[in-house]
Amino acid sequence: MDTVKILEVKENVFKENEVNATTVREEFKEKKKLMINVMSSPGSGKTTTLVRTIQMIQPEYKVGVMECDIDASVDAETIQATGAKSIQLHTGGMCHMDAQMTKQGLDEMGIDDIDVCFIENVGNLVCPAEFDTGADINLTILSVPEGDDKPAKYPLMYEVSDIVLVNKIDALVVFDFDKTLMEERVHKLNPSAKIFYISAKTGEGFDAWINELRSLIQERKGA
Amino acid sequence: MDTVKILEVKENVFKENEVNATTVREEFKEKKKLMINVMSSPGSGKTTTLVRTIQMIQPEYKVGVMECDIDASVDAETIQATGAKSIQLHTGGMCHMDAQMTKQGLDEMGIDDIDVCFIENVGNLVCPAEFDTGADINLTILSVPEGDDKPAKYPLMYEVSDIVLVNKIDALVVFDFDKTLMEERVHKLNPSAKIFYISAKTGEGFDAWINELRSLIQERKGA
Repeated sequence: MDTVKILEVKENVFKENEVNATTVREEFKEKKKLMINVMSSPGSGKTTTLVRTIQMIQPEYKVGVMECDIDASVDAETIQATGAKSIQLHTGGMCHMDAQMTKQGLDEMGIDDIDVCFIENVGNLVCPAEFDTGADINLTILSVPEGDDKPAKYPLMYEVSDIVLVNKIDALVVFDFDKTLMEERVHKLNPSAKIFYISAKTGEGFDAWINELRSLIQERKGA
Repeated sequence: MDTVKILEVKENVFKENEVNATTVREEFKEKKKLMINVMSSPGSGKTTTLVRTIQMIQPEYKVGVMECDIDASVDAETIQATGAKSIQLHTGGMCHMDAQMTKQGLDEMGIDDIDVCFIENVGNLVCPAEFDTGADINLTILSVPEGDDKPAKYPLMYEVSDIVLVNKIDALVVFDFDKTLMEERVHKLNPSAKIFYISAKTGEGFDAWINELRSLIQERKGA
């Protein structure tokens, strides 16, 4: 039965991944740098959100971004234009990032001259939730057009997410999106998840998210 | 190296899957029934599109739907309300449907009293593209808010898709979405892919898609 085979292998992969993730996380803690793993569906606005975020925290903080795509590289070019350090990782068809890939990316990019590193994970609400990348914070972007029911349908993603950015709030006028219901669904899965409403297109709502990000970076620096 | 391990197992899984997919496809051909595998990102409107599609082809044709979710079951209930035959498959955390799961679902649902069967695959643009479900037609829904660049970013999905339904065209007013560019990207990956523009919310554009669907069902019936 192929199902059983997959599960056995997955267990080994998960164990190895845990070890790698812990190594990455310890290095970041020791060097007083922060890593945030950004996950979402395809087209939720990960890159646009990162661009605006970088623009708002530079030059105060130095930013690195690891762009993970199956084989495209347009996003890394977009990020590079902000002045942030950027590297494109091709997952070779893999549907998620794992800690080993993170390590490879970090070694190649170098982290000594950055304060905060973002992983832009593969656009996928399923597999990335299963693999610890070694990041300190998991962040999920939920865009309004996807619907308020996504936490109920992809529960693991919301269970593992510390921060939820609800993006494209400028499109709330044309979509039925129940904020209260969505918040209830998120907090049922993860009571301590922090939720921010943003529009990466217009900049609305970014102040609160950026304040949170600054606090997290400062906390890590021990300031 | 865990990457190598995964690949070896995947090869076996793919081989077994091909055999199962062929068995399913031959059964459908012999029984003159059609199966369509519906794939998309989370929140692109798979269920809403299916509901309207079913309403437009019933009672002329009898419809069966296999709803695949990680562990939710709201979609199957929505489908059942249309009068179509419906079954909910829980993939147990798996990020895609394969042909073995399709067979299990079909055995449980029964296909003797249906003309066309839809698989609503897990919302994911990566993994479902890799696994042949045994369906005759692969259909991808791309919703306008996701952006016109999705074919470039998730190429395999568009390579394997015979039909692309561009959904949420009622939201074109609030999003930058270049139809020509999107069509070029799709046809570069799959020159024979048929593209239809729809709004599952308003019904706009459904006539052309339903005509195509009728032709496919009739062709399979040999009428």
